[in-house]
Amino acid sequence: MRPVVIPLFALMWGFTALADEGMWRPQQLTLTAKALRAAGVTVDPARLADLQRGPLASVVSLGGCSASFVSPDGLVATNHHCVVGALQYASVARGGDSLLESGLTAQSRAEEPWAGPSARVRVTVSETDVTAEFAAVIAAASTEAAAALAVESTLKAKVAACEQGRPGHQCQVARYDGGTAFVLIDQLVLRDVRLVHAPPRAVGDYGGDVDNWMWPRHSGDWALLRAYVGPDGQPADHAAANVPFKPAAHLTVNPAGVKASDAVLVAGYPGRTFRHRTATELELTEKEYPATLKMLGELLTLVRELQGRSKALETKLSALEAGLSNRQKYVQGNLDSFAASDLVAVRRGQQRRFVEWARRQPDGAAGLRALQDVDALAMKTAEMQPASEVLGALSRTSSVLRAAFAIHWLALERAQPDAERQPGFQDRDVPELEGQLSQALKSVELEAERPIVGFLLARAARLPAAARIEGLDALFAQHADPNDTTEVLGAGIRQGAVNRLVDAVFSAVKLTDGEVRSTLLRATREVVEASGDSAVAFAASLAPDRLKERDRQRAAQGAELRTRPRLMAALAAHAGRPLYPDANGTLRVTYGKVRGYAYRDGLTAEPQTTLRGVVAKATGKAPFDAPQALLDAIVATHERMRSGQLERFGDAALGTVPVDFLSTCDVTGGNSGSATLDAKGRFVGLLFDGNYESMDSDWIYDLRRTRAIHVDVRYLLWSLERVYGGAHLLKELGL
Amino acid sequence: MRPVVIPLFALMWGFTALADEGMWRPQQLTLTAKALRAAGVTVDPARLADLQRGPLASVVSLGGCSASFVSPDGLVATNHHCVVGALQYASVARGGDSLLESGLTAQSRAEEPWAGPSARVRVTVSETDVTAEFAAVIAAASTEAAAALAVESTLKAKVAACEQGRPGHQCQVARYDGGTAFVLIDQLVLRDVRLVHAPPRAVGDYGGDVDNWMWPRHSGDWALLRAYVGPDGQPADHAAANVPFKPAAHLTVNPAGVKASDAVLVAGYPGRTFRHRTATELELTEKEYPATLKMLGELLTLVRELQGRSKALETKLSALEAGLSNRQKYVQGNLDSFAASDLVAVRRGQQRRFVEWARRQPDGAAGLRALQDVDALAMKTAEMQPASEVLGALSRTSSVLRAAFAIHWLALERAQPDAERQPGFQDRDVPELEGQLSQALKSVELEAERPIVGFLLARAARLPAAARIEGLDALFAQHADPNDTTEVLGAGIRQGAVNRLVDAVFSAVKLTDGEVRSTLLRATREVVEASGDSAVAFAASLAPDRLKERDRQRAAQGAELRTRPRLMAALAAHAGRPLYPDANGTLRVTYGKVRGYAYRDGLTAEPQTTLRGVVAKATGKAPFDAPQALLDAIVATHERMRSGQLERFGDAALGTVPVDFLSTCDVTGGNSGSATLDAKGRFVGLLFDGNYESMDSDWIYDLRRTRAIHVDVRYLLWSLERVYGGAHLLKELGL
Repeated sequence: MRPVVIPLFALMWGFTALADEGMWRPQQLTLTAKALRAAGVTVDPARLADLQRGPLASVVSLGGCSASFVSPDGLVATNHHCVVGALQYASVARGGDSLLESGLTAQSRAEEPWAGPSARVRVTVSETDVTAEFAAVIAAASTEAAAALAVESTLKAKVAACEQGRPGHQCQVARYDGGTAFVLIDQLVLRDVRLVHAPPRAVGDYGGDVDNWMWPRHSGDWALLRAYVGPDGQPADHAAANVPFKPAAHLTVNPAGVKASDAVLVAGYPGRTFRHRTATELELTEKEYPATLKMLGELLTLVRELQGRSKALETKLSALEAGLSNRQKYVQGNLDSFAASDLVAVRRGQQRRFVEWARRQPDGAAGLRALQDVDALAMKTAEMQPASEVLGALSRTSSVLRAAFAIHWLALERAQPDAERQPGFQDRDVPELEGQLSQALKSVELEAERPIVGFLLARAARLPAAARIEGLDALFAQHADPNDTTEVLGAGIRQGAVNRLVDAVFSAVKLTDGEVRSTLLRATREVVEASGDSAVAFAASLAPDRLKERDRQRAAQGAELRTRPRLMAALAAHAGRPLYPDANGTLRVTYGKVRGYAYRDGLTAEPQTTLRGVVAKATGKAPFDAPQALLDAIVATHERMRSGQLERFGDAALGTVPVDFLSTCDVTGGNSGSATLDAKGRFVGLLFDGNYESMDSDWIYDLRRTRAIHVDVRYLLWSLERVYGGAHLLKELGL
Repeated sequence: MRPVVIPLFALMWGFTALADEGMWRPQQLTLTAKALRAAGVTVDPARLADLQRGPLASVVSLGGCSASFVSPDGLVATNHHCVVGALQYASVARGGDSLLESGLTAQSRAEEPWAGPSARVRVTVSETDVTAEFAAVIAAASTEAAAALAVESTLKAKVAACEQGRPGHQCQVARYDGGTAFVLIDQLVLRDVRLVHAPPRAVGDYGGDVDNWMWPRHSGDWALLRAYVGPDGQPADHAAANVPFKPAAHLTVNPAGVKASDAVLVAGYPGRTFRHRTATELELTEKEYPATLKMLGELLTLVRELQGRSKALETKLSALEAGLSNRQKYVQGNLDSFAASDLVAVRRGQQRRFVEWARRQPDGAAGLRALQDVDALAMKTAEMQPASEVLGALSRTSSVLRAAFAIHWLALERAQPDAERQPGFQDRDVPELEGQLSQALKSVELEAERPIVGFLLARAARLPAAARIEGLDALFAQHADPNDTTEVLGAGIRQGAVNRLVDAVFSAVKLTDGEVRSTLLRATREVVEASGDSAVAFAASLAPDRLKERDRQRAAQGAELRTRPRLMAALAAHAGRPLYPDANGTLRVTYGKVRGYAYRDGLTAEPQTTLRGVVAKATGKAPFDAPQALLDAIVATHERMRSGQLERFGDAALGTVPVDFLSTCDVTGGNSGSATLDAKGRFVGLLFDGNYESMDSDWIYDLRRTRAIHVDVRYLLWSLERVYGGAHLLKELGL
C-alpha cells in the first residue's frame, strides 16, 4: 500500500524548524536551549555541547555507524547490523560455526574475539571552527576548480598540522552545507576492537528484509564491542597484551527505560541529508530515481540468480544483495514519499515564499542569484550523472575492480609529494586501505564478479552521447569483431564486445594474492602497470576518465563552494535564526519524544512494541525464525509477570518487556548504533532505523510521520539476564 | 502475519455473557433491558421487541442477506454484495454494459430495473412460540428417526395452517439450539424487487478479495432496492402495473452518523453460529479443517485455471471463484484463530468448570449425561462427513447437477401427498425453485462444469472405507476398463473410470433448455427418468445414496432434538440467566459500541476510516481502482472542508467524510445488509463484514477482538449527493 497522502506542514527551508526537527551541532544546542527545555530535556545544554564530558564524550563513530561507551572498561554499545562484518571476520578467523547465526556472549575478556583489521572506534576529541580561514582561501582563488584545489590543500595542511606528532590521532576538516562552515575535527582512533556480545542473527535482524524500514518492528538490533589499547594506554594494533581502553566518560543505563511522550535525545554521526535543497534539485532527483530503480532491479535479479547457484555464492554475495536491496527499498520509498507528499510542489511553494521575501529585502538580489546559480550547477551535474554512476558502481560492486582502481590510483598519486595527494591516498592511509582490501578480497568468487561487471559494462555501452566514458569506448572498439552479430547495445557497440572485454578484465587477476596486493599497494605507477594483472590493466585504461571525472567533480565542488554558502546565508536570514546544517558524518544531537503516528487511514502506530509481538511474528522460518531459547524465555517471563513475580526489566504497564520504540528524533543513515538518551542523558536505547513513511526524511522532516526506530535498552538487558547468560555484562553496565 | 496470541477472557458457555456479546431474539430484549440501557441504548426495549412497529418492522430478509425499509415508498437499503446477482441479471436483461461494473442510479421509478425472478423481500409479520407442542411430539416418538419425522410433519402442518388462505405469506418453523425452542414465523414475501441504486463495483467492492474480512476497510458496500406489489397492495409477480410497497414502518436516517464510543444496534437475520458447542465438537471441527482447506485449494486452482481460458469463463465462474475463495479465507481464518486463541483448550477449561458445577447440583447428572450424548453424536456424524461433503459439493459447484438433483428429487417426492413431502419440495416451492434454476442455468458452460465435476468424482473415488458412496462406486465399476493403466485413486478405481463417468454425465444434457426444465420440474418420476438427460440419469443413480444420506441426517437430527435441549437447559441453569440462542437465520438484535481494537503489537485499529484512505489505497488497478469521478469528488470535498465551506455529510472532527466503521456488535453471515442503528434507533450505517481477527466468532465472542464492520451512512449520503446524482433519493430518505 502506498503511504497515505498528507499535505506537508513541515516548513523548514527558510521557515522556522519544528520542535523535533534538526540534527544539531553540539555547539548549537546552547542557541536552542529554550526549545530543548520545552521538549522536556533536563540536561544542561552547555553540558551537551561539551565534547570533553559525558554524555557526548561517550559518543563515538565506528565509521558508517555510531556507538557509545557504556562502561569504564571501554565497553561499546552499537547496533547488531553494524557488527555483521566483524562477526563474519571472527567466524572465519576461528574457523568455526557462523557467529552471525549463533550470536556470541564472551564470558571473559580472554574470550572476546577480534573484530578484524578494519574495525575502528573513533573518539572525537575536539572540534575547531576554521570557517574564516577557508572563506579567505575560496575568495582568493581565480577559478572554481582553483577554489576546490585551494580548499583541498588548505585542508591537507590543517590535517597534517593537527596530526603532527600525535600518533593515534586522525584529523579531518568537515565541510557543512557546501562550504557554509568548515570545522577541524580531531579524533582518537582505537584500532583494536573486539566483540563482546551479539544476539543471534534471528534476533538482531529479526524480520530481515521484510521488516526493514517497517513498523511495527521487533528487532533486537544491539551488539557490544570493547575498545582495546596498548599497555601504555595509547592506540595500538591488535595484540594479546592490549588492555581495555578507559574512556573519558561512559553512559549510565536507565533500566526503567522510557514510555510514550517521554523526551529522548540521540547523539551520533548522521551521514548525509539534503534538507536545504532547491525545488529544482529535488525535481532532478525525482526524475533520476525511476532509471536507478530499473538498474537496481536488474542487478538484483542477476545477483540473486548467482546466489542460487551455490551455498558459497549465496553467502559471499549476501552483503551485496542486502546493500542493493536496501538501496532499492530506499529509492522506491523516496519515490513513493516524494509522490505521496507532493514534495517538489511543496518545496516550490516554500521557495516561492522565500523568493517573495527576498524581493522585499534591500540586499535580496544576492539570495535570488544564489538560488539561480545552485539550480544551474545542479542541472549541469545531472547530465553526467549516468556516467558517474557506472564508474562508481564498478568499484562498489566488484571487489577486484575496487582493489585494482585503488591500487592504480594510489600509484598515480604517489608520483606527487605526500602532502599534495588526494585525501585518502596519502601514505598515512595505506594501512587502513590495505586492511579494507584484504577483507574484501578474502573470499572473492570471480564466477560472480564477472557477470556483475558484464552487466555494468553493458550499461556503460548504452550511456547517452553526453555521458560516454571514452576509455571504455576505446576498449569496446578494441574488442569489436566484424563477424559479431550479437545485439547492438548503444553507440554501435555489440554485446559480444562487452563479453570479450569482461573476459579480458578477468583473464589474469593476481590481486587476490595478499603478497601481490601488499607489494602493489606500495609500488610506483610503472611497477603497477607492469604487474600483468588484467584488472589493474583495465583500471589503467580507465584512469584518464576517472581523472576527468575527478576534475569535473572538483570544478563542481568549487562552484558549490562559491554558491551554496550564499544561498544558505539568505535562507538563514529568511528564517531569522540559526539553521541546523545538513548531516555530513559529523557528531550531531537531535531531540524529540517517544511518539506513534497515524499509520494508515484506520490504523495508528503505537510507539512501543513488546515481546508479545516477537511471538506473534514467529513462523519458524527466516526472517521470522525467533530462536526457541528466546521463545521459551518469553513464556517464562510472561508467566512470572502474570503471577506478579519480579521481572527486573519488565514494564508493569505493558505487562511484558518492551522491544522497540518510535521517537520523533531527526536521524538518518550513519546514526545507526547511536545511543538514545532520556531527558537526563541516561542510556535507554539504540537508534537503528527510520520508518517507511519517512523514507524521504533525507529531504524533508514531517513531524506527523517522520519517526526514528529504537531498540529499547530493556530488551537488551532482559536478554542478557534471561537468554544469553550475560549477568557479568549487566554488572559491568552498573546493574 | 498470524493473529496475535491473546488468552481469551470471553467466558460465555455457561458463564455470563459479556455486555456486547449476543444475537438476541427481539423478545429477549426486555429480559436484558438493564444491560441495554447500560450500553447507552435509549430506545425502549419493549419497542425493540415489537415486530409490528419501527424500528424492527422495517427490518427484512432478502434470503441470505438482511435489509431495511428506509422510505415510506418501499425503498430498501442493503449491501452492494447482496445485489451482485440482481445487477448481473439486470445487465443481461437489458443486454447492455455490466451494471455491476458501472453502478446504477435510477432517476425515476420507470428506470428501476427488475432484480430478477429469484429476488425476494421477506417481511417478518409475526413470531409465535410453539415449543411446547413440539416438545410433546418429540417426547412421544418411539425412536430418534421417528422424532425427526414427527417434527417434520408437525412442522409442515403448522406451516400449511399458517399459509392457508393467505396468499403472499410464507411461514416456517424455526428451530433454536437443536430443538431447545420452536417458533412459527410468518413472513410476507414480496416478489417484485427492483434496483434503485448501486455504486460501481470498484466502490461497492473496493479492495475486493484483498480487503475481504480485513480492517482498515474502505468499501462502499451499499445498494438500494425497491419492493413492489400489485395495484391491490398484495404481493405480485413482476409486472409493469405494480406499485411501490408501503411498509408498516421505515427507518429514519441520522445524517450526523456515529463516532467512537457511541452505542449502536444491528437488527437482521444472522445465519449460523456455534457458540454453545462442546470442546469435542470444536476439536472435531478443528481436525476437519486442514482437509477442507486442501480440497478448497485444489478446487480453486482448477477454477482459476478454467477462468484463464476465456473472458466468458472468467465471468461465468466468478461467483464460484469468489464463493470458494471466501470459504477458503473463512476456514483458514478459523484455523488461525482457533490456534491463536487456543480455542479448544479454552472451551475445555470452561467445560470443566461446568462439569464441576454440575457435579455439585442435586440434578446435575442429567446435564453431564447430555454432554456425553452430544459428544457421541458429534463423533458419529464426523465419520460420514467426507461423503456428505462430496455429495453437497456436486450440487453446489455444478449448476447442471444442482438442477438434475433437484428435478429428480422433486419427482421422487411427488409420489407422496404434498403435505408429506420434504420441506422445499412441496408444490408451493416449485415456482421459486424454477426461478433459481433458470437463473443458475442461464449461461452454463459445460466446458467448465465437466472438469469441476471430474475433480469432485475423483475425490469421491478416494473416500475412506467408512464413507463410500455406493451408487458412485457402482458407476465407477460400470466405467472400469481392464486395459486402463491410469492412476488408481482409491478402492481400485482408476482415473480413467472417473473420466469416462464424467463423459457419460455430460453426454446428453438437456436441462439447459428452459422448456425441458419446466416440463421435468412438474413431471412424475417415470417421465423424469425416461427423459434421456444424462445428468438426470446420474442423479437417479445417486438417489439411493442421497436418500440414505437424508435418513442418516434425519436420525442425527432426531438424536440432536433429544440431546441438545438437555445440554442447553443445563448450561442455562449454570449461567443463571437466559442464554441467547445460536443464530439460525431468524431475526435478531445485537448491540454494542463503535470501537477499535488492538490490531497487532505496535498497531491500534481506529474505529473509523475516511475518504483519505480511499485515495491512499487507489492504485488504478482492481481491486483498488477507485473511479476517477469518486477521486475528483473527494478532492473537491477536501478543498471545501479545508476552506471551511459547508460539506453536508462531512465530519468536522475528522476533516473529511467517514467511510467505514467498527463496532463490538455480535454478528455473522446473513447479517450482511443489516441496518446499523444509533442509540435512538436511527439509521446510521449498514453492517457488511467482520474482521479477520474475529473469524472464529461463529464459535466464540471475544470483546477484545471480535468486531463488526459497517459502512457509514454518511458515505452513502455523500456519494448520492456528490458523485451519483442521487438528490431525489436523498429527498426520499427524508433529507
